[in-house]
Amino acid sequence: MDFPVTKIKGGVGAPKGFLTSAVSCGIKNPAVDRLDLALIYSEKPCNSAGTFTTNRVKAAPVRVSQAHLRKGELRAIIANSGNANACTGVQGIRDANAMCDAVAKPLQLKRSEIGVASTGVIGLPMPMMRFEPKYSELFAGLGRANGSNVAAAIITSDTHAKEVAISFELGGHTVRLGGCVKGAGMISPSMATMLCFITTDANIPADSLRKSVLECVEESFNRITIDGDMSTNDTVIMLANGASGMPAIRRNSAICKQFRQALNWLMLELAKAVVRDGERVTKFVTVKVEGARTYLDAKKVAEAVCKSALVKASWNGGDPNWGRIIHAVGYSRARIREELVDIYIGGKAACLGGLQATTPMDELREAVSHPAFEIVINLNQGEADYTMYSSDLSPEYIDFNRSEYAYWKQARKDGLV
Amino acid sequence: MDFPVTKIKGGVGAPKGFLTSAVSCGIKNPAVDRLDLALIYSEKPCNSAGTFTTNRVKAAPVRVSQAHLRKGELRAIIANSGNANACTGVQGIRDANAMCDAVAKPLQLKRSEIGVASTGVIGLPMPMMRFEPKYSELFAGLGRANGSNVAAAIITSDTHAKEVAISFELGGHTVRLGGCVKGAGMISPSMATMLCFITTDANIPADSLRKSVLECVEESFNRITIDGDMSTNDTVIMLANGASGMPAIRRNSAICKQFRQALNWLMLELAKAVVRDGERVTKFVTVKVEGARTYLDAKKVAEAVCKSALVKASWNGGDPNWGRIIHAVGYSRARIREELVDIYIGGKAACLGGLQATTPMDELREAVSHPAFEIVINLNQGEADYTMYSSDLSPEYIDFNRSEYAYWKQARKDGLV
Repeated sequence: MDFPVTKIKGGVGAPKGFLTSAVSCGIKNPAVDRLDLALIYSEKPCNSAGTFTTNRVKAAPVRVSQAHLRKGELRAIIANSGNANACTGVQGIRDANAMCDAVAKPLQLKRSEIGVASTGVIGLPMPMMRFEPKYSELFAGLGRANGSNVAAAIITSDTHAKEVAISFELGGHTVRLGGCVKGAGMISPSMATMLCFITTDANIPADSLRKSVLECVEESFNRITIDGDMSTNDTVIMLANGASGMPAIRRNSAICKQFRQALNWLMLELAKAVVRDGERVTKFVTVKVEGARTYLDAKKVAEAVCKSALVKASWNGGDPNWGRIIHAVGYSRARIREELVDIYIGGKAACLGGLQATTPMDELREAVSHPAFEIVINLNQGEADYTMYSSDLSPEYIDFNRSEYAYWKQARKDGLV
Repeated sequence: MDFPVTKIKGGVGAPKGFLTSAVSCGIKNPAVDRLDLALIYSEKPCNSAGTFTTNRVKAAPVRVSQAHLRKGELRAIIANSGNANACTGVQGIRDANAMCDAVAKPLQLKRSEIGVASTGVIGLPMPMMRFEPKYSELFAGLGRANGSNVAAAIITSDTHAKEVAISFELGGHTVRLGGCVKGAGMISPSMATMLCFITTDANIPADSLRKSVLECVEESFNRITIDGDMSTNDTVIMLANGASGMPAIRRNSAICKQFRQALNWLMLELAKAVVRDGERVTKFVTVKVEGARTYLDAKKVAEAVCKSALVKASWNGGDPNWGRIIHAVGYSRARIREELVDIYIGGKAACLGGLQATTPMDELREAVSHPAFEIVINLNQGEADYTMYSSDLSPEYIDFNRSEYAYWKQARKDGLV
C-alpha cells in the first residue's frame, strides 16, 4: 500500500458503531458446544454492498440477501454455520426469512435491512428449533468487543478463525476497516461455502461502496482456488456506517481511491488466509502469469494451473514439476506457443523456451520445500498478466471429504429427514 | 449392438495381415526388464486415421504422426512407454524421426508411412541409446500372435494391459477389429498420456475410416475423465488393411454403418477399461445427463459433475451425496433450473425437483457401495442428453502422483540432464 495502516484487534467489531454477538446453538451437533450463530449490527444506518455465488444453484440465504440488497441498505447480518440452507426449497426461504425476522423485531429494523448467510451441509432442512431458544442470548450479547466471536462462529472445516482489522488516516480522519472470512468459495471445503463480512466506519457513498466491493472481490476472492468447486452459498457483504465522523467521500476522489486500496488490501489478506487454511493444505502457492496476449488468456492459464489435480499433487509432494505445469498451460485454451513459455519456481528458472532450464534440481526442490512459494509463468506473447493464489491437494483432503453421512444421521435423529 | 460379435484373442494382432512385436529396452529404468517398445506392421498397404490431443503443448511424436497422416496413409506404428518425448524441443522431433527411420528402413517403407507414439514423463530427453541396441530384436520378433505384447508394452501406471478384439460378419465376410489402450487422456495418469491403437482387416475407404474414427472417439474417449487433466500425448491411430478379402465398403451404406457401430462398441470398451484401471480408482461411475435444453448444456453438466473433486471424493467414500452433485450442476454454466433437477443414484431417486427425495438413505448407500454404478441427472428442460464415464478420486491417487523425482534421477544417471 502507498500509505501506512495499523493492524488493530476486533475484526468486524473494530470499526466504530458496530456491535456484534455470537452464541452456540448446536446446529451441526447439539452435543458440541461451539459458537455457530452470529450477529453484526450497526448502531447507525449503513451503506451496504454484496456479491454472491454465480452458481445457478443458490442457497436460500443468498436469494434472500440479494433481494434485500435490491430493496435498499442493510444494517445487520445474521449468519450461521453447520447447515448451508441450500437445496431446501420453499421451506429454506421461510427459514432464512425467519432468521431475518428474529433479528429485525428486537432491533426495530425492517426485514429487508437484514442480510442472512449460512454455511454447512447442503440439502438438509435447517434445525430451526435449535436457533429459537438462543435468539435472546444473541441480542443480550451484543457488544463492541465481540468481533472475534463472529469470526469464530462462521467457521466449519477451517482450523482457525480468520479476521483482519486496520485503522488508517483518510482525508485527515482516522477510519477503521474490519473483516472476517471462512473458507472457501471456489476452494469449496466440504461444507461448501465461503462467507465474508466486512465493516467500516468510513463514510463512503453507496455507489462508490458497491463499485469498490465488486472491484476488490475480483482481485481477491475471485483469484483463489483450492479444489475448483464453486459453492452454492458464497457471500461477501460489506456495511459502511460512517461512524468515524468523517465527511462523505467524494466519488473518484483521491480519498476514494485510497479507501479502495485499503479495502483491496484487506480483502486480499482475508482471501489468502482462506487458502492458507484450506482443507488439509500444506502449501500456499502464488501463480503469476505474465506476458499473455490478453487478460483473459492470462486468467485461463492461471486457472488451469491452479486447478490441475496433477500440478497440485506435485506441490504436495515437494516436486518442482514444470512438465505438469506446462501441460496445464497447454490445455488452458489460451493462445500460447510452447516454445516461448518460461517457468520460474521460487525465482529460479525451471523451464525456458518450453525446455528444461539448467538450474540444478536441488535448487528447484529447495524452492518448493517452503510452506509458501511463487511460480511465474511468462508466456512471452504480450503484456497482460494475472495472479492467482492456490494450494496443494493432499491425500488428506480427499480422505477428509469422503463422506457427509454424519450430517444426515444427525438430521434423522432430529426428525428433519 | 444390433448384430452378433465374437470376442477373440490377440488384440491389435487379431485382424488378418497385421504383424506385431514388443521388446524390453529399460527406457524408464534400465534395471527393470519389462516390455516398453512396440511395433505394429501391416503386410498390406492400409487406410489410416488418427486423432490427437488438443493440448497446445504437443509431444514430438504427436507432431510427427500428425504430419505423416497429412502426407498419406500409415502402414506401421512404433510406440514406447517410459518417456513421453514431450517438451523436448528440436531434439525431441529428431528422436521421434529417428524412431520412424529405424522402422522404415528394414520394412522398406517411407518414413511418412510410420506412426509414432510415446508415453511417460514430460520434459526429459529420450534415452535413445537404450532403443538402438533393441531394434533388430524388435523386427525379428514380428509375428501374428504378439498383439498382447503391444498392449503390455505401452502401459505405464496402468495395473494391467487393456485390449479387445472381435470378429463379426460384414456383408457376408468375416472381419476382425482389434484394439489396445493405455490410460489415460483427460484421465491423465502421472505419465500423462493415453495411447490407443486399433487395427482391422475390413476394407474401409480412407474417408469413411476417418469419419468413423472421429465420430467414435467423440462417443468414447472424449467422454471419460478421471482427473480432468488433458495430456500432451493423447493419440488414437487406426489402421485398416482390407486383408479380410471383402470388397470395399461403400460410403454411408448399411455395411458402413454396421462397421461404425462395431468400432464404436470397441472404442467404448477400451475407453471404459481405461477408467476402470485409472490410477487408484475404486469406483466406475456412469453419469447420464438427460432433459437438457441443448447437447452442449448436457455436456457441460456431465463434465462439471465428473470433474468435481468433492463429488469424486464422496464416491470414494461411498457417500450418495446428491448435494455435491447438484452444486456441480449449478456451476457448470449450463442453463439449469434448480427446482427442476432430478437426480437418481443407482436407479433410486436421491433428489426430486431440487429437493431431497424420500428414498431411504440405506438404499442410496447400498447403490453407491458397488464398484460400478450409474447416476442419472434429469434437468427436465428439454430433450438433449450426454453420457460420461468417470471414477472416484482417492487419497491414494494424490499420494501416487506426489513426485516424479525418480525419473529425473534416472535421467541424471544417464547423463541426459
